[in-house]
Amino acid sequence: MTRIAFTKGHGTGNDFILLLDPSNELNLSKRQVAKLCDRHFGIGADGVLIAIFDSVWFMDYRNADGSIAEMCGNGIRVFAEFLFKRDLIESVAQIKTRAGMKCVERIGENIWSVEMGAISSQEISEPLRFQLTSYRATSVNVGNPHVVVELGTLDNLPNTLQWADVKNLESLPNGFNLEFYVVNSDTSVSMRVLERGVGETLSCGTGVCAVGYVQMLSVGETMCEVHVPGGKLSVELESDGIRLIGPAELIADGFVELT
Amino acid sequence: MTRIAFTKGHGTGNDFILLLDPSNELNLSKRQVAKLCDRHFGIGADGVLIAIFDSVWFMDYRNADGSIAEMCGNGIRVFAEFLFKRDLIESVAQIKTRAGMKCVERIGENIWSVEMGAISSQEISEPLRFQLTSYRATSVNVGNPHVVVELGTLDNLPNTLQWADVKNLESLPNGFNLEFYVVNSDTSVSMRVLERGVGETLSCGTGVCAVGYVQMLSVGETMCEVHVPGGKLSVELESDGIRLIGPAELIADGFVELT
Repeated sequence: MTRIAFTKGHGTGNDFILLLDPSNELNLSKRQVAKLCDRHFGIGADGVLIAIFDSVWFMDYRNADGSIAEMCGNGIRVFAEFLFKRDLIESVAQIKTRAGMKCVERIGENIWSVEMGAISSQEISEPLRFQLTSYRATSVNVGNPHVVVELGTLDNLPNTLQWADVKNLESLPNGFNLEFYVVNSDTSVSMRVLERGVGETLSCGTGVCAVGYVQMLSVGETMCEVHVPGGKLSVELESDGIRLIGPAELIADGFVELT
Repeated sequence: MTRIAFTKGHGTGNDFILLLDPSNELNLSKRQVAKLCDRHFGIGADGVLIAIFDSVWFMDYRNADGSIAEMCGNGIRVFAEFLFKRDLIESVAQIKTRAGMKCVERIGENIWSVEMGAISSQEISEPLRFQLTSYRATSVNVGNPHVVVELGTLDNLPNTLQWADVKNLESLPNGFNLEFYVVNSDTSVSMRVLERGVGETLSCGTGVCAVGYVQMLSVGETMCEVHVPGGKLSVELESDGIRLIGPAELIADGFVELT
């Protein structure tokens, strides 16, 4: 049984176990990752972020089920804060991810700004069926596929969004993340998100980008504040893509048995 | 912001944050407990167990919402293992709880036996309505009220047991914990449990006692193995009450910011 150091942190309620493994020696199995993320038998988290040094820091991101993941807009901020607090990066740094090199910048206490890359959207002719209602929807590509639906209010949504209530779209046969949002003002929206393969979550970095992007295009602004159940983020539109800005909090440090 | 030491542990998937506070100086607020137990913004657990020294060790047990709780058959084993590993108790010890003094004994590696106290049962004439079906039920008092239903199989139960599917019983107007179980053999049963005010859980110490007791009475045995979704426990019937035996695992140690 090995005992390893860990940190737990979250970005707007999207929570992660962080492991420092500069020389890539841990080689965690899928089962070990799933055990660490198990909320009753392990520490519990939405995923594991392993910091491996490979000329720059590489974010080896694993989902809670142990599968490999590409990139996470909330995770990378927590990852950056973790390295920053250990003096392993400066307040502006390049982070290597499976979705390419990402520039991150600490623009305030615990607040990180992340280049999320290219984004594009298109109206879908097919309506989105949720429970008994059809909604006009926009599809947004932020590296992964999103479907965004504007509502007059979020108050009539069920307590928990569930995939069982969503009808598949013919135009997106491989699935999507679904966001419902309301406009608070030209530069502020509130949203809820249903993540593919997961269910409703407190926050989703690419979902925040998708909703913020649709709103910025709609009103011709270049920034938008986005409220999610887990907190508040903002997005900014730049010539070469979208930027996500939000908090990163480190909660606890310790040692865990790797079984 | 204070940084305090913590341990996380579980007993058959019922998980706890353990704090050592011999002189009772922490005085955690309800909000601080709820934050520690929050599974996304904190460490995450079903409850907090604070070890306070008061001639013997007192288990100051708080629920995940910060409210005060009396006693927990899974929690006390984890609490005992936590103190034992720190050489603060011997392998046989008295633990003070809000439900009185409890004798615990470490009878194997990570395995603790706990005196749970008096237990009694009675047939209820009123059937238990769950979804569209009526079941013959037995009420069991283990300090707290339980309703126990024997089934031919657990396979037809829904994926998640929910209180919305249960009709209140006139004979237990203040509520109860509900257990469904199947008999594997005279001395082995498997069960699922719906806890009052919580929902379905991986394990419930008093629920295990309730089901094991009904089975022991039914076949005239004095021990019974009880399988729950979170693992395996056993119960033993003694002249003055019931004894619960099961594992206690410590998962991680560390420091957490108390905010």
